[in-house]
Amino acid sequence: MNECTVTFLPHARDISVPEGESLIRAALQAGVHINASCGGEGVCGKCRVQLESGSVDGGTTERISDEDIDKGFRLACLSRVSGDATVRIPIESSVDRSVMNLQATPRRTAKIQQMDFEVLKEEGLFIPPVEKILLNLSPPDAQNNMPDVTRLVEYLKLEADEHKLELTLPVIRKLPSALRDGNFQLTVTMMRPVRSDGKNLILNVQPGDTTDSNYAVAMDIGTTTIYGQLIDLTTGECLAEAGDFNGQISYGEDVITRIIYAEKPGGLQKLHEVVVSTINSVLEKIIKKSKIDREDISTITFSGNTTMTQLFLQIDPRNIRRAPYVPTATLYPPFAAADVGVHINEHAIALNYPQVSSFVGGDIVAGVMGSGMYRNEELTLFLDIGTNAELVVGNKDWLACTACSAGPAFEGGGVEFGMRAAKGAIEDFSIDPITYEPMIFTIGDVRPKGICGSGLITMAAVMFEIGVINNRGKFNRDHETARIRQTNDVWEYVVAWKEETQIDRDIVLTEPDLDNLIRAKGAIYSGCMTLIEEVGLTMDMVERIILAGGFGSYIDLEKAMTIGLLPEIDADRVTFIGNGSLMGARMSSLTNRIRKDVVSVTQKMTNFELSETPSYMDNYIAAMFLPHTEIEKFPRLKERMEARKK
Amino acid sequence: MNECTVTFLPHARDISVPEGESLIRAALQAGVHINASCGGEGVCGKCRVQLESGSVDGGTTERISDEDIDKGFRLACLSRVSGDATVRIPIESSVDRSVMNLQATPRRTAKIQQMDFEVLKEEGLFIPPVEKILLNLSPPDAQNNMPDVTRLVEYLKLEADEHKLELTLPVIRKLPSALRDGNFQLTVTMMRPVRSDGKNLILNVQPGDTTDSNYAVAMDIGTTTIYGQLIDLTTGECLAEAGDFNGQISYGEDVITRIIYAEKPGGLQKLHEVVVSTINSVLEKIIKKSKIDREDISTITFSGNTTMTQLFLQIDPRNIRRAPYVPTATLYPPFAAADVGVHINEHAIALNYPQVSSFVGGDIVAGVMGSGMYRNEELTLFLDIGTNAELVVGNKDWLACTACSAGPAFEGGGVEFGMRAAKGAIEDFSIDPITYEPMIFTIGDVRPKGICGSGLITMAAVMFEIGVINNRGKFNRDHETARIRQTNDVWEYVVAWKEETQIDRDIVLTEPDLDNLIRAKGAIYSGCMTLIEEVGLTMDMVERIILAGGFGSYIDLEKAMTIGLLPEIDADRVTFIGNGSLMGARMSSLTNRIRKDVVSVTQKMTNFELSETPSYMDNYIAAMFLPHTEIEKFPRLKERMEARKK
Repeated sequence: MNECTVTFLPHARDISVPEGESLIRAALQAGVHINASCGGEGVCGKCRVQLESGSVDGGTTERISDEDIDKGFRLACLSRVSGDATVRIPIESSVDRSVMNLQATPRRTAKIQQMDFEVLKEEGLFIPPVEKILLNLSPPDAQNNMPDVTRLVEYLKLEADEHKLELTLPVIRKLPSALRDGNFQLTVTMMRPVRSDGKNLILNVQPGDTTDSNYAVAMDIGTTTIYGQLIDLTTGECLAEAGDFNGQISYGEDVITRIIYAEKPGGLQKLHEVVVSTINSVLEKIIKKSKIDREDISTITFSGNTTMTQLFLQIDPRNIRRAPYVPTATLYPPFAAADVGVHINEHAIALNYPQVSSFVGGDIVAGVMGSGMYRNEELTLFLDIGTNAELVVGNKDWLACTACSAGPAFEGGGVEFGMRAAKGAIEDFSIDPITYEPMIFTIGDVRPKGICGSGLITMAAVMFEIGVINNRGKFNRDHETARIRQTNDVWEYVVAWKEETQIDRDIVLTEPDLDNLIRAKGAIYSGCMTLIEEVGLTMDMVERIILAGGFGSYIDLEKAMTIGLLPEIDADRVTFIGNGSLMGARMSSLTNRIRKDVVSVTQKMTNFELSETPSYMDNYIAAMFLPHTEIEKFPRLKERMEARKK
Repeated sequence: MNECTVTFLPHARDISVPEGESLIRAALQAGVHINASCGGEGVCGKCRVQLESGSVDGGTTERISDEDIDKGFRLACLSRVSGDATVRIPIESSVDRSVMNLQATPRRTAKIQQMDFEVLKEEGLFIPPVEKILLNLSPPDAQNNMPDVTRLVEYLKLEADEHKLELTLPVIRKLPSALRDGNFQLTVTMMRPVRSDGKNLILNVQPGDTTDSNYAVAMDIGTTTIYGQLIDLTTGECLAEAGDFNGQISYGEDVITRIIYAEKPGGLQKLHEVVVSTINSVLEKIIKKSKIDREDISTITFSGNTTMTQLFLQIDPRNIRRAPYVPTATLYPPFAAADVGVHINEHAIALNYPQVSSFVGGDIVAGVMGSGMYRNEELTLFLDIGTNAELVVGNKDWLACTACSAGPAFEGGGVEFGMRAAKGAIEDFSIDPITYEPMIFTIGDVRPKGICGSGLITMAAVMFEIGVINNRGKFNRDHETARIRQTNDVWEYVVAWKEETQIDRDIVLTEPDLDNLIRAKGAIYSGCMTLIEEVGLTMDMVERIILAGGFGSYIDLEKAMTIGLLPEIDADRVTFIGNGSLMGARMSSLTNRIRKDVVSVTQKMTNFELSETPSYMDNYIAAMFLPHTEIEKFPRLKERMEARKK
């Protein structure tokens, strides 16, 4: 797709965007404010701009007269960039250049860090744990009538230089017919050991040559959703991906309520069955999509948090939720996936990502492995933000982790007009530093219904930077605008008037909403800070941030740093890995190196229970400000704030 | 029980027998013939003897006048030895001392070789593969909240010096409650590895101290019967034993017909289910008898022939019965017994005795291990005689084995009045060298119904030695006795007249019966000979014979050597181990040494397929005589035969 340069006047800010991008989103990315409150439907008509050179597609409406159209006036939200262009924003009040400096920082999301299979290959790390080997055995005769298993094992030792072999009963059962159906041409599926002194497990035997059909499944067992990928082990390709809501949702939204359910009579069995049923439905989908033979799947790598893993394996999770928060196990032995009810051939081996503690589970370990942070020099902070946030800090030499409860603010909970990231959610926001009029962006470019997590962060950030709220999240009572008002003793800002919404109510951001946001970000930041301090470092030493989980992809990084959710580092040094759990599971399927490393990585990850770490409460209290009691920790923000005061 | 000496005149033979033994059996053991044909019921009245000194209990009957009773006359079959005594056998015809030299050799059965647990202990070999260890763990607290499995493993490593630990999912599932139910006092059941580089498998975890309840099961899966023993691993004692007919009998008497059934649709599944069902019934019995908790059983060691093992493990046995006779496997991995349908706790591990070939199976390997022959210097011949005979020869340095089809003669098949060893079967026999009148002994001392294997061997031996039959098993047509006659062109000897039987028919031994016997013993002897020749030795080098299987216990050894079933060696050097398969299974349960040795022993056992060994047919033809074409191979017999000619 062509990149086009759009120059916004009078700010004189350039931005490069792909052809087809809406002009108003280009402005947002440039950090240029345009009043806009209808979510991009063209109904509020506030986002009038004037095209000075170049052209855009669309942007005309009956609200703009033909004469004005001729003069280049367009609605920014309806205009699509079609080439380089210069666009002037009408500045309605008399402002000087310094006003333009009050604009928010340009929008920056984290670079997406994808698993690069080619790099894996180049590094010589494409070593699937499971390999298929073709054997041409000689048939038995009177002089050589050794048992079938002996024939196979001897051949592997003498002709294929394969040693330390181990077989299971199901493979032995299959061997006589597999040998004879293929006229003693046999494909052997071999699982490689993790340790050099380990055994080569013969997982499967098939008649004839099936070496080009060798598949693995990676499966992320999330509390809310379960995702699976079907991976071709000969090419490394992902052939199919599918997801489904975890059937356990009906028994509780979060891990704690699930554990409580599991403690009821029959509850553990039920939750086990329900999650296995979702796993099977996801498995059906990816097998169907990829059109492969279920028989050719050799491994399924599961990753999930500690509770999800225990429920999947039908292990009583009651001690997870009770102090001192003891999970049952870190490492699980490989086992036949069919043994726990997975609808798969009886040879397929289930591998489970190890857990670190009750609240830092296999999903996080998978993310650490998949992101490669455990192999790098840089001091990296790994964050998986949800209702619970898991934090890992470290590098190739050491790793420390913890988990904290952020509360549901980032998922729309405890916020008056909060909602999950779905169509109609305000996901981005800007504010005019003079008029306090907003520019809003909704998911799906429709009229707003509510505010999602990333919208909330951005609102707080730009309002704080412009001085609409103070560092305790309280509105400036002196600003002259109808948008800041007191209703039933609660101060609030009207993000969208009811005529502009889908819900026929004013959408507002309240001080209690901001309190909740500050508590959530404070919990996370102070978690990071405590963790880093406990290992004897300071936050400013963090060189790299990795965000995982669905939430991380939309966060405007500069805004997240402005409110003190993330420590302030160069946005280029923040990457987003998406579903780190699934990525790690897929990585493990592709390279035995990960399986080899994961044990030592897990052992290396020092877990801190924040409730047992005295400094956590002090750090938490210090983090209950925007961005923090000590603004020195955020030097860029401090500089911008000081510039603004001049 | 007191031993009493009985002296028989005019032979002047002494025999020492326990008080209460019948006088006629004492005579048999002394090699003294007394006419007797009613099986000991006192109805034929032929076994009149005269007490010359000492006394006996009973022996009087209305057939003996009071006057004769006063003279000391008694019926030998009704008299019980009650002290030292001298008894005269009335010699009805005029005979000289040389006649008495024509008497058969004294009866000799093999010494019973029992597993001696005390010896095992003394040799330091009481090392059960499974051990229970008591641990006193410290409960978790805020400073030490490692996962339960980690707590267990760390404790085992640091406090109990246990390393290379492996856990299974069922144990992990059980651990949280086991730890807490026992207040962190925990009994761990550990299975020791066979090889020094192997792993210690944690089989079970139980709350509190259960170290005094550690049990194993030994189970022999025979084609006809299944026997189980429940073994206390703390004392080595056998707490209970039980057996039952293998439910597969309804689907075929022998292994070949079972294999044919298994090839039918659903047949394998059916035979698997049926044998597992018998196993479960035997298991129920021994658990009930021993009053132990099923939960405390840690291992079940199975031994069975190759076909029984494959049917039990549900492995298609079709290639066993087809040239080149390929079994599926030699060694089977340990697996959870519950996985194949055994009604046992999910932690109990099934261990299977390895197979050598299609016809030398785990039952024979178990016998070799149980008898200890693989640890001795002496050249030993191990024989398990049934419809199929399995032969093993060797010592601690080498072992060779084979199997041959003896046909059913020893089990009563192909013999006109043949029957299994059951009540009413003639099991022992003697013949008067002058009158050719018989002395018969039946199982249960009742009137005869037929002839069992050991009876058949003895008849052929004594008839051959006395000259009633020649070395091709043909009756001497010149003897003047009504007992040797021709009926429908077939020569036969009347063993019991119909009035003396339970079946109201003359019980006879025919030349075709003798042909079958000679074929059966010839197959076994020539099997042994071929095997020994193939390893470059000769039969006279055999120093020790071990008999296994039900048949071996009743065989009169000298008679078996006389007909050339066994090579001629000192009867003291023949031992009987009974159910060698069960004995081996029990031994394995008691000492890991056996489990360690069995792999190398199995690999060391060179298997010969007789059908592929050219010399077998020559040896077979040479063995189709009594005792053999070359009587030089039987020097003691030759000496007796020559003495008789003088």
